[in-house]
Amino acid sequence: MTQRYVRIKTNREQIYYGVLKANRSVLVYDAPPWLNGQETDMVLESDTYQLLAPCVPSKIVAVGKNYLKHAVEMGTPVPNEPLLFLKPPTTIVADTQSIIYPLQSQQVDYEGELALIIGDRCSKVNPEQAAKSIWGYTIANDVTARDLQRKDNQWTRAKGFDTFCPLGPWIVREVSVEATIQTFINDDHAPRQSAVISDMVFNPDFLVSYISQIMTLLPGDVVLTGTPEGVGSIKPGDSVRVEIEGIGSLLNQVA
Amino acid sequence: MTQRYVRIKTNREQIYYGVLKANRSVLVYDAPPWLNGQETDMVLESDTYQLLAPCVPSKIVAVGKNYLKHAVEMGTPVPNEPLLFLKPPTTIVADTQSIIYPLQSQQVDYEGELALIIGDRCSKVNPEQAAKSIWGYTIANDVTARDLQRKDNQWTRAKGFDTFCPLGPWIVREVSVEATIQTFINDDHAPRQSAVISDMVFNPDFLVSYISQIMTLLPGDVVLTGTPEGVGSIKPGDSVRVEIEGIGSLLNQVA
Repeated sequence: MTQRYVRIKTNREQIYYGVLKANRSVLVYDAPPWLNGQETDMVLESDTYQLLAPCVPSKIVAVGKNYLKHAVEMGTPVPNEPLLFLKPPTTIVADTQSIIYPLQSQQVDYEGELALIIGDRCSKVNPEQAAKSIWGYTIANDVTARDLQRKDNQWTRAKGFDTFCPLGPWIVREVSVEATIQTFINDDHAPRQSAVISDMVFNPDFLVSYISQIMTLLPGDVVLTGTPEGVGSIKPGDSVRVEIEGIGSLLNQVA
Repeated sequence: MTQRYVRIKTNREQIYYGVLKANRSVLVYDAPPWLNGQETDMVLESDTYQLLAPCVPSKIVAVGKNYLKHAVEMGTPVPNEPLLFLKPPTTIVADTQSIIYPLQSQQVDYEGELALIIGDRCSKVNPEQAAKSIWGYTIANDVTARDLQRKDNQWTRAKGFDTFCPLGPWIVREVSVEATIQTFINDDHAPRQSAVISDMVFNPDFLVSYISQIMTLLPGDVVLTGTPEGVGSIKPGDSVRVEIEGIGSLLNQVA
């Protein structure tokens, strides 16, 4: 089975990186694994910790309109080159934590996305080098106040509210380009979003290379690779689940 | 004389916070002063360290078009509320470090700005509470690839290149609302930008309160308060100096 790399907080408020075992115990590492963290002999049982978001990025770089059909549904062309924006790290919440619906918005949308976790400091790398700098993959929800996105010229406010970046629940080292990404609302069986990773306009290696021509990416940084078609609104009380084949699912309620 | 709070790297590669004395020696603190750092008995002489940017923010939140005449020169109205954007922390360089002119741009502009340093974690504070959360003030240059800003819908690339946020050289606790902010190019005596802090459309307390309704500000975070009229281009070989009365001057060469 694929290794699942996690970050946890123990009942005593200590924070560790580690590997999640099939019985939900965690084998603790002495540092983030992308910083050469090694196994320790500490194992924490499933009732002694909670999962945190799996990394602590110095920045979250996100890409707009990276699936053709999503650009079409937004009424905009696919850019000739990746369209970048930033989400502040304070947007991050873990699996099962709540998305807080802000007072300033009347329309909050989910956007299920594949997230890349950077393992090495990289500046001005080509796509082949970029591939080696991607340490792993997790799931993100690029929650967006759509009304504020339309109103403001910049997307910073619309995408920058606290809790607007559910991330996790864990990191895996590999994901198939044929993996499906799907988003479900509440108990609906039909996904609201459903695509395969290879539908992306710009692939992960290209994105990391492109970003690295502008800004240095640091270990633990997160790149959000864009959302497929089918974005829609969520309201307080809803739960939203983003699933990526080979990774798992990320579930958050709206509060 | 006003205390000047600095961050330094010693010749032995150790990093400290401290206070800069008139003879350029540094009285070392045991932590960032906004995190209750206290004086130690270590004093470093002027030839044993170099100045770093004075803080390490988890995010840089910037405000667009916050001086009326600058909005006019950009051909745009002043927003009804602050227009926010983010610069990645990798943009920061210290006083005297170089601004690297990126290959992707043909027009790089200076933008002298007053920077606020956040002292306390703050979420959803009113302007009175916000005032107490502003620990100090320094100088910033919100360097912008103007051609890419016009081309891209989002400003992230245009304002996000490595070295595009000179910051420093130090932090002071107070600045007068009547302080002048001026930007000079090379040895020119006439400033390219000249305004007083009180020309801002939204004042620092309001800005911090406004931002805190969206995202939690953390100790050491930086808020850039917008640039006055008179923005213009810089080219390799130029030096750009931003001066704020009561703080000092921030000098960077373009490489």
